[in-house]
Amino acid sequence: MRHMIFGESHGPAIGVVVEGVPAGLALDLEAVQRELDRRRPGQGPTTTARKESDLVEVLSGVFQGKTTGAPLAMVIRNTDQKSGDYENLRFTPRPSHGDYAGFIKSGGYLDWRGGGHFSGRLTAPLVAAGAVAKQVLAGQGVRVGAHISSIYGILDASWETEEELLAVAAKPFPVLDDGKGEEMRQAILQAKSERDSVGGAVECAVFGLPAGLGSPDFGCNVEGIFAQYLFAVPAVKGVDFGAGAAFSLMRGSEANDPFAVKDGKVVTATNHAGGINGGITNGMPVVFEATFRPTASIALPQQSVDLRTGEETEIEIHGRHAPCIVPRAVPAIEAAAALAACQVLGI
Amino acid sequence: MRHMIFGESHGPAIGVVVEGVPAGLALDLEAVQRELDRRRPGQGPTTTARKESDLVEVLSGVFQGKTTGAPLAMVIRNTDQKSGDYENLRFTPRPSHGDYAGFIKSGGYLDWRGGGHFSGRLTAPLVAAGAVAKQVLAGQGVRVGAHISSIYGILDASWETEEELLAVAAKPFPVLDDGKGEEMRQAILQAKSERDSVGGAVECAVFGLPAGLGSPDFGCNVEGIFAQYLFAVPAVKGVDFGAGAAFSLMRGSEANDPFAVKDGKVVTATNHAGGINGGITNGMPVVFEATFRPTASIALPQQSVDLRTGEETEIEIHGRHAPCIVPRAVPAIEAAAALAACQVLGI
Amino acid sequence: MRHMIFGESHGPAIGVVVEGVPAGLALDLEAVQRELDRRRPGQGPTTTARKESDLVEVLSGVFQGKTTGAPLAMVIRNTDQKSGDYENLRFTPRPSHGDYAGFIKSGGYLDWRGGGHFSGRLTAPLVAAGAVAKQVLAGQGVRVGAHISSIYGILDASWETEEELLAVAAKPFPVLDDGKGEEMRQAILQAKSERDSVGGAVECAVFGLPAGLGSPDFGCNVEGIFAQYLFAVPAVKGVDFGAGAAFSLMRGSEANDPFAVKDGKVVTATNHAGGINGGITNGMPVVFEATFRPTASIALPQQSVDLRTGEETEIEIHGRHAPCIVPRAVPAIEAAAALAACQVLGI
Amino acid sequence: MRHMIFGESHGPAIGVVVEGVPAGLALDLEAVQRELDRRRPGQGPTTTARKESDLVEVLSGVFQGKTTGAPLAMVIRNTDQKSGDYENLRFTPRPSHGDYAGFIKSGGYLDWRGGGHFSGRLTAPLVAAGAVAKQVLAGQGVRVGAHISSIYGILDASWETEEELLAVAAKPFPVLDDGKGEEMRQAILQAKSERDSVGGAVECAVFGLPAGLGSPDFGCNVEGIFAQYLFAVPAVKGVDFGAGAAFSLMRGSEANDPFAVKDGKVVTATNHAGGINGGITNGMPVVFEATFRPTASIALPQQSVDLRTGEETEIEIHGRHAPCIVPRAVPAIEAAAALAACQVLGI
Repeated sequence: MRHMIFGESHGPAIGVVVEGVPAGLALDLEAVQRELDRRRPGQGPTTTARKESDLVEVLSGVFQGKTTGAPLAMVIRNTDQKSGDYENLRFTPRPSHGDYAGFIKSGGYLDWRGGGHFSGRLTAPLVAAGAVAKQVLAGQGVRVGAHISSIYGILDASWETEEELLAVAAKPFPVLDDGKGEEMRQAILQAKSERDSVGGAVECAVFGLPAGLGSPDFGCNVEGIFAQYLFAVPAVKGVDFGAGAAFSLMRGSEANDPFAVKDGKVVTATNHAGGINGGITNGMPVVFEATFRPTASIALPQQSVDLRTGEETEIEIHGRHAPCIVPRAVPAIEAAAALAACQVLGI
Repeated sequence: MRHMIFGESHGPAIGVVVEGVPAGLALDLEAVQRELDRRRPGQGPTTTARKESDLVEVLSGVFQGKTTGAPLAMVIRNTDQKSGDYENLRFTPRPSHGDYAGFIKSGGYLDWRGGGHFSGRLTAPLVAAGAVAKQVLAGQGVRVGAHISSIYGILDASWETEEELLAVAAKPFPVLDDGKGEEMRQAILQAKSERDSVGGAVECAVFGLPAGLGSPDFGCNVEGIFAQYLFAVPAVKGVDFGAGAAFSLMRGSEANDPFAVKDGKVVTATNHAGGINGGITNGMPVVFEATFRPTASIALPQQSVDLRTGEETEIEIHGRHAPCIVPRAVPAIEAAAALAACQVLGI
Repeated sequence: MRHMIFGESHGPAIGVVVEGVPAGLALDLEAVQRELDRRRPGQGPTTTARKESDLVEVLSGVFQGKTTGAPLAMVIRNTDQKSGDYENLRFTPRPSHGDYAGFIKSGGYLDWRGGGHFSGRLTAPLVAAGAVAKQVLAGQGVRVGAHISSIYGILDASWETEEELLAVAAKPFPVLDDGKGEEMRQAILQAKSERDSVGGAVECAVFGLPAGLGSPDFGCNVEGIFAQYLFAVPAVKGVDFGAGAAFSLMRGSEANDPFAVKDGKVVTATNHAGGINGGITNGMPVVFEATFRPTASIALPQQSVDLRTGEETEIEIHGRHAPCIVPRAVPAIEAAAALAACQVLGI
Repeated sequence: MRHMIFGESHGPAIGVVVEGVPAGLALDLEAVQRELDRRRPGQGPTTTARKESDLVEVLSGVFQGKTTGAPLAMVIRNTDQKSGDYENLRFTPRPSHGDYAGFIKSGGYLDWRGGGHFSGRLTAPLVAAGAVAKQVLAGQGVRVGAHISSIYGILDASWETEEELLAVAAKPFPVLDDGKGEEMRQAILQAKSERDSVGGAVECAVFGLPAGLGSPDFGCNVEGIFAQYLFAVPAVKGVDFGAGAAFSLMRGSEANDPFAVKDGKVVTATNHAGGINGGITNGMPVVFEATFRPTASIALPQQSVDLRTGEETEIEIHGRHAPCIVPRAVPAIEAAAALAACQVLGI
């Protein structure tokens, strides 16, 4: 499976083409729509006020309710653009947004309305493609779950069982511990009230991948494959497998996962390795955390440069920005993980 | 430039083929050898006792001292193998090593001597390829530097200038603050004396990449490209750009990098983004940290499983293992970064 | 530039996403539409009677009339499907069509209406993508021209100058010698009247590619790059560069292209090599011929197998099939060549 | 399986790295050597006089006689170089050789001795890689055979059965009809005596590929995959599947392959399609022909240009050139086909 995402925040439509979807899958479009609804904007004070129904239209690859194996194209029409909000930012790039880098790359010809192709809105087609991938994976006994692991330093609880993590998908605020979730929401609202934003992290697990997939070699390494999908999610700045950054503080005797036998199967007593040794799956869940930077668009005044005059200037960003993108990013991370898992499985 | 690394720890030779090296480069083979010497084993009590001269032989791609543009093949002969050390581990995989995952993947046909193709020794051809990449980058005004940023919780100092970071390459123990380096060495020796190992991290920066390279899209995203190279370095379990994991603790107003004008050029006052916005370079140094897990091979007794009988068993690993691989990994991370930078530049 | 084509003959829409289009190109959508009109069906007795206006809608990648560098998505709605014509063919594959191979590949889940994703109609998005590529190439001084070189053994004249070949694009029947074109049309109509079809070939040239592009190596070789694009055009069964198959009849002294100097530039007196030596462009026009098999859909009774019963059976194909696809394939071959030329140029 | 070939005709060694070879294959190195012997130079008056033993050394990927799944590196040392023969040609490119295109590409830094990386000698590592691929395919019930189909217009007989074609591999002059082979040898010797060379073609078939592999889409299309491997064989200028160029002379009623049932299996009565419909295998043998241009290196005086002065000049090529490369190219085409078949099978 290979995918290509297209669209701009304020263009006519966004979408994705997915090549290599196995034929004969009874595509559950309602499930695709449910995933889209999980990331849909306009659902409360912690997200952007933009209203989009995000209804997906399938243009190809499905016939009589089943996938045909031909490329599957899905399109979502944009409906609630307010482009006027962005005109004053055309030549004064927003700090830590893609504006300046994109301006230089495109020679100034980028679509500067609403972040254009850099918009977090582009995670909608990713989620749609991931929803298809999840259905393909289900047929292979592979499942993907995720939760907000932290926002602005407030940590969610840890999960013990697969069921516990998968159950998070049904929650409006995707955490394990709703009390912690409420603290996170307050931190977000506090930041919003101060015209600011906050960062956080999402932890994700892929269950059911058999041992022996991948390779230590460049391009085939499981961590490398997942990372490539994850860093393509806007605002992800770090990807850590298993114990991740904590490995730097550990001794081998703490970090190593002892082998054991459970129900006649080789397992590890702990899973600090995040299910991957030597770039190859070891049969334990593939577990990783993706760190998200705080939303770059904040309402506080910021220092920019006028690209026409080359002079420093102050800007204020108006518009409808989420003070924290992490809650809505959970399905996007699951989608990226599902697509990566398909590649690892050779689908 | 594309590369393919081959070899096993106890096979006749290890090596690499690099396609797409630009023609006409006066290849400095002594500089390649110097990089190899930086990661060479047998250089003191903190590393493995295996002695290898690691002399590189160029088989193709260089003519009359200049690269020809044809594939460049480099080979390093293995000389100091002690395969007897490993025979007892053939069916009892070492925890957190590639042994078990590799056994399953290969159906038991992997070369189990010295970690085989999973050995850290395979970073030697990576360093050789990276040394070529560095010379290619030098012609484009791009430089790569790195240092040990932490070992077992002991943090190195921060760098301020490019010169300061690049100077670390000349040091036998590659840190900015030699006092901290001594503390790190003591922590390594302490772990060794306790038959254990320690983890750490390497921070790396690529200087001189122009703004506007890369794309937000899957496969072309700068973070994703770097990550794919970095996770192919054995024992890397996390990759974080700029402020990295700390982003999860930050507000947008702290995390955002204000634009400024310096010497007529658009820069950012801080570089929390690690030189990348929206998957595209912004002209600031590309900065990232790679976390290394502690060496999996420790001398303490560990729990394993006998893959023939399916029963749990205890193993002890003999052999000449480095109690910490981070110091020797610094040139490997630089090499991976140099190859990634070439891809980002379209070389 | 990378592209992904999607759609089925009788689905809601067909289309293409093109990644990597350089930013700042003033996209001439009328020129895209003109190319689509060249391959549009329903334009006379020698083609299919299906009527499609083939109006292209741009969903992304263009802003204020200029390309943005973001993925360019184009969609064409299907309007004149007659799916009833195909129901009786669902389990009795048409000889030499993709029906049977596609049935096996998809486990029977392919869209069997009108050839589904195998339909020649899928050349419409290819032509659209190629029209964009042609505009990109124009900015690099590269031009693409083609003509029907033969139909059922009737050969078109040879071209001498670039202008002569490029002028063919304006003709309704794209040949150099209109007399020969009339003979070809008669051969097509004769075959049609006998419920049969005919094959032919298209010769194409890419002008203006500089010398030194490509490589002898797998994956980078100019002939290999072109061939991959050309064989993805439905019904192409042979690709020959320069003298092509005639090389097998030649001596080196006839086949070799003597070097000469013209206007201070190194050229070759002949161009039997089709502009490529050792997998690398030599500065002469890249010239090749693509052979098309006769339309597989013929009205004559044919032997098939009922895939449900495994018994041999006779079928008759009804529907609106072109007795020869070569005339309409000319813009498709130009499109494939334009996309290949972009890859060779590293665009 | 992915491969990377390296080396120059007069460098220290040539070789190949093959990634993704399945583990557990009992690699028959004598069979690899036999394939190399089939293409080895110095075996008679119709080939070059250069003597090379072409002994292959395996550097990695094989342990205790079995493949490990790690990259397999094979090296062949060069021994009989006569570089002096080429010094006078450094700045006066040989017509229709890679010299000029390579000179421009490399800025003059190519290895000009013996064709360097452009040399037909580079088919030796291709044959070695292909010999490994053949052994992998054998485990899947897939076999590859080929014969010289024509030299200078002298056609070999047609094959009827798989056994007949596979038996050609054991012959010193690989044709079906030895009488025709003798005519071909005379044509080659005649050309040689006149200081000239001749072209020809190789027909190849892959037996045992199941139906349903591949796709009509760019990059996955079976014809496109094979073509990319075949055009990377030096001197191949045309690739035609099944009836190939003859399709242009045919009617659909002649070209179509009627379906039939044989031994309970769906087959086609003829195989004009060469085993591929719609870019997908149909279960019949994949059959194609590759056209080879006459050896560019001929002893007759030829027109060139002195690249230093930009003036036209006459050159004479001395050295030990084969007057026809087609006989020795047969195993190279089989090798390319075997590697392509592995890709089509997803190995």
